[in-house]
Amino acid sequence: MGLFTSPIKTMDDLYLHTLQDIYYAEKQITKALPVMIGKATNPALKRAFEKHLGETEKQITRLDEVFSALGEKAKGTTCPAIDGIIKEANELISECDDHEVRDAAMLAAAQAVEHYEITRYGTLISWSKQLGKTKVVKLLEQTLAEEKATDEKLTQLGETNVNKKAAA
Amino acid sequence: MGLFTSPIKTMDDLYLHTLQDIYYAEKQITKALPVMIGKATNPALKRAFEKHLGETEKQITRLDEVFSALGEKAKGTTCPAIDGIIKEANELISECDDHEVRDAAMLAAAQAVEHYEITRYGTLISWSKQLGKTKVVKLLEQTLAEEKATDEKLTQLGETNVNKKAAA
Repeated sequence: MGLFTSPIKTMDDLYLHTLQDIYYAEKQITKALPVMIGKATNPALKRAFEKHLGETEKQITRLDEVFSALGEKAKGTTCPAIDGIIKEANELISECDDHEVRDAAMLAAAQAVEHYEITRYGTLISWSKQLGKTKVVKLLEQTLAEEKATDEKLTQLGETNVNKKAAA
Repeated sequence: MGLFTSPIKTMDDLYLHTLQDIYYAEKQITKALPVMIGKATNPALKRAFEKHLGETEKQITRLDEVFSALGEKAKGTTCPAIDGIIKEANELISECDDHEVRDAAMLAAAQAVEHYEITRYGTLISWSKQLGKTKVVKLLEQTLAEEKATDEKLTQLGETNVNKKAAA
């Protein structure tokens, strides 16, 4: 969650910072995905990344709605976790010589990103309920369902196509 | 996965590097957890962290067995993803003034760690099967089941105890 400008004193502060953390993360993902789309050689993987980029843009709009519903300004705060996950993905991609192996590596990297989003949205939904911010629960649940579906789709794509080709 | 000493040419190379990545990650977690145990004030959360530290040590031993079964030397490789996740957790912990809010923040941070492990072990299991490394699948599956159970336990602890107190 980076270096905050203000200390975290209450659960409301922690909630807002976590919202800013995932907002920053989603924005970083929209920068990372086009690179992965450009490098993916497996057509099904490329399509999955393209679809997820469109979804991520909608998820940012949904977060804008969440901030607005809470009477807060939409903004991000540096998130070392997603920065680390993306840094690792970029290093790995650049070190893979074979394009099928690179596809398998990118698929795994995308799943690491999905799992970061799954845990953060899960936490935010739990906190929203406990803090009585019920009006944003449905918005966050919609995104969580999409992230879980994307992760599941990537698992299937790995098992039936991408990793299979790379391991052949 | 850090800066590799050798490029990744085959799926076997990618597999070995991912094994080294999670080995490094598990070792970093055994360093991070004692700090969180020291700072946790909720007794149930403290116990959950203590239990997970014991489990993590067993999971490292299990990874030693995996390396050994594959005829490889057990070693880690710098993993920017877990470093980022732990850096974020430490920054957040230091910025929480209230001990109940800090407990809620640590619970969320621990779940982010769990999800990183869940995605990496999931990938390794899938690759083990595709690469014919069937003798290590059961070992990796044991750890994955533990990570999922810990994540689920933390979710329940948040909903029934830790976050509830912090939000009160």
